[in-house]
Amino acid sequence: MEYASGKEVLQVTTYEGLLDSAKTNLPARLHGAVHNIRDMGDFAFVIVRIPAGLVQCFWGKSSGDQSVFNALTSECTVEMHGSAHEEPRAPGGVEVRVDSITLLSSPSEDFPINISKRKLGINLDTDLNNRPITLRSGELRARFRIQAGVVRGFREFLDANGFTDIRTPKIVGGNAEGGTNVFRLDYFGKKGFLAQSPQFYKQTMVGVFERVYEVGPVFRAEKHSTVRHLNEYISLDFEMGYIKGFEDIMAMETACLSYIFELLRRDYSRECKALGMEIPVIEKIPTVKFRDAKELISAEYGHKIKDPYDLEPIEEQLIGRYFKEKYGSDLVFVTHYPVKKRPFYAMDDPEDPKFTLSFDLLFRGMEITTGGQRIHTYQEQIDKMISKGLDPEGFADYLMIHKYGMPPHGGLGLGLERLCMKLFDDSNVRYSSLFPRDMNRLTP
Amino acid sequence: MEYASGKEVLQVTTYEGLLDSAKTNLPARLHGAVHNIRDMGDFAFVIVRIPAGLVQCFWGKSSGDQSVFNALTSECTVEMHGSAHEEPRAPGGVEVRVDSITLLSSPSEDFPINISKRKLGINLDTDLNNRPITLRSGELRARFRIQAGVVRGFREFLDANGFTDIRTPKIVGGNAEGGTNVFRLDYFGKKGFLAQSPQFYKQTMVGVFERVYEVGPVFRAEKHSTVRHLNEYISLDFEMGYIKGFEDIMAMETACLSYIFELLRRDYSRECKALGMEIPVIEKIPTVKFRDAKELISAEYGHKIKDPYDLEPIEEQLIGRYFKEKYGSDLVFVTHYPVKKRPFYAMDDPEDPKFTLSFDLLFRGMEITTGGQRIHTYQEQIDKMISKGLDPEGFADYLMIHKYGMPPHGGLGLGLERLCMKLFDDSNVRYSSLFPRDMNRLTP
Repeated sequence: MEYASGKEVLQVTTYEGLLDSAKTNLPARLHGAVHNIRDMGDFAFVIVRIPAGLVQCFWGKSSGDQSVFNALTSECTVEMHGSAHEEPRAPGGVEVRVDSITLLSSPSEDFPINISKRKLGINLDTDLNNRPITLRSGELRARFRIQAGVVRGFREFLDANGFTDIRTPKIVGGNAEGGTNVFRLDYFGKKGFLAQSPQFYKQTMVGVFERVYEVGPVFRAEKHSTVRHLNEYISLDFEMGYIKGFEDIMAMETACLSYIFELLRRDYSRECKALGMEIPVIEKIPTVKFRDAKELISAEYGHKIKDPYDLEPIEEQLIGRYFKEKYGSDLVFVTHYPVKKRPFYAMDDPEDPKFTLSFDLLFRGMEITTGGQRIHTYQEQIDKMISKGLDPEGFADYLMIHKYGMPPHGGLGLGLERLCMKLFDDSNVRYSSLFPRDMNRLTP
Repeated sequence: MEYASGKEVLQVTTYEGLLDSAKTNLPARLHGAVHNIRDMGDFAFVIVRIPAGLVQCFWGKSSGDQSVFNALTSECTVEMHGSAHEEPRAPGGVEVRVDSITLLSSPSEDFPINISKRKLGINLDTDLNNRPITLRSGELRARFRIQAGVVRGFREFLDANGFTDIRTPKIVGGNAEGGTNVFRLDYFGKKGFLAQSPQFYKQTMVGVFERVYEVGPVFRAEKHSTVRHLNEYISLDFEMGYIKGFEDIMAMETACLSYIFELLRRDYSRECKALGMEIPVIEKIPTVKFRDAKELISAEYGHKIKDPYDLEPIEEQLIGRYFKEKYGSDLVFVTHYPVKKRPFYAMDDPEDPKFTLSFDLLFRGMEITTGGQRIHTYQEQIDKMISKGLDPEGFADYLMIHKYGMPPHGGLGLGLERLCMKLFDDSNVRYSSLFPRDMNRLTP
């Protein structure tokens, strides 16, 4: 009988492994794709891509079969044998002197785009049309390694704080938020919709596990094309019970972002440096009421208030600027949004029922999170639906949780790509999505 | 200025915290939902649900305001103060003697279903129609805590083995696998589809990070209703480069499952015990060629082979039974599936090109994984598409990766709900999805 054994699995090449070889004088082995070749005549540097970055390989006259070297081009994949040496000027502090190269595969054509430069330097459409290969550039690799770190940090922090990771359906039977911005599909003859958020489900799961989180796609059929909207994006959601007030949600988000940012500084310093990122240090985040924020920027910057119920993008920018200038903070919580602009599950402020116990988090002048306390009693939820012109009968499944008992609770949704956009100081959210979806783009 | 501070966040109640209170004689505080009340006349046990399980609270004559106790019903949410005491017979080994109860919220109606029994004992449709509340039962809570553990184990293992976590689009512009089982939607006037798998994207990302994984929903518009199919499910996908053969993929999966199962034994022993789960110990998994497997069960059980190109469910069961009986293994890899039944990206076996370098993993007689080595050279992929009757022009974005160079690579997709179904020894995969989607079910 033959078996698959889990005892030994194929290893990736790491800087740590190469440095170990250098220190112990043991032979070094590496595999990866040829990122580029710098041919100096008598010798050459073959730059090989490994998961963590690039490795500088030195090819000299004694490096074995010249015909293999001559056949190398960018994007060939290779296995190399040689010796590793500490070299502070090389990436990862190590260089490999090559004894032999095995060619594993070769491309059929050369790249139409030079991806070996530090910054890609091409326009966004060209980048996106060629994403399967531009993603191999150092710049894009660093972005999406960091994005993986952001998500890992979110999960690690919440796991450690008693949250349970859940997965809720993306095809849903109802148009949850009641809006028009929803994708519709035929579901075996029934009307189906793509979930705009896991809102109802995560609230439901608070009745089950008290604290839950989900990292998953959400879908918004918004018919406008801006630098800050995607029609499919990743929402980092959490929801928690037994809160004393919506301030508990803001405290949890503050602690969570602080954890994520520390994790990036610790585990992704190479990538952060490559992108020239500045990561905020957060211990506390200023909070300001929606109404006060409008007045502050009106007084400070002479901004004229047009929409008293919502924040325009320019207002978010000015509020961000104000709190940066006055308090040195990249982040600010805007609280107590008007009832009129918040969904039917938002809890009203008992002190002023035109407003809700809700908040947005602005990061460098852009909303990245919406959250707040939810209504948890049955009659209050029914009444609020009716006052919003909704028919409670259409929400029977959702209302089960209110009918059969829920703790005081609340939560938030954090847009992953927007958080990354602001971390990277980008002008367009599309840079932070592997394969972005917008009104005009459904490929690659 | 007011601030949200991340320094102190609201804590959940844990067994560990209560046991600490018991050991240090400090006052105990807990919050949760009343799971049920066992009123013994002179005293009562109020069983409170916390994220980790149930806490036994003792209410006696000296426990404070009797009117608050009288108002308690199941699914009230409460905060309690009292003293914790070690009590080996109580869940978590601790009991709380109550001094005072604060009632936080009350349900409007009593549950139509008794969720306080060890096993729910209701039929599946009743369960699913009432999922928002049946999920609060001990049985379902244990299932989905374990499911979270399975996913955490998958991620932890792959993170530690050089894989990068990715998120790829679920609305796609092409019908990737060429099948009819795809959900269609109108995407701003264009034809959109829901992704049946992240196949093309994860292969693309092998060119970027060498090793990637994704945990996300996939969508299959399969028009049949069976105990093992869901129309939306969670796929645990990984894909890796620089393999020597598809055996490397099987070795990685073996090691990964072994890690996950150890994690369940370590961190979820309470839940596993509650469900009476038997978790396999895996060091190695037998492998058998597709053709040989058919012959083995034909000889052993007198099973008549009808379809020489695929395995029927009964054949999967018999193969599972055979390897359990002969080799004591709950798992078996069936390898070398026929070209005819494998997708166009599967690599043919050079030794017999009617078969592919691919595998399924059967767990207790059911397929939970499909994987294999992929074609990585451009011309070979073009030729295979044509031989399968596909037009390479429709796959231009995908073929970029082959054109511009890919390492030898392969990967797999593991169905989360099926893995859980078999772990829980369930008769229906729907038990393992929070809110399952099938041909007839789009709610709750």
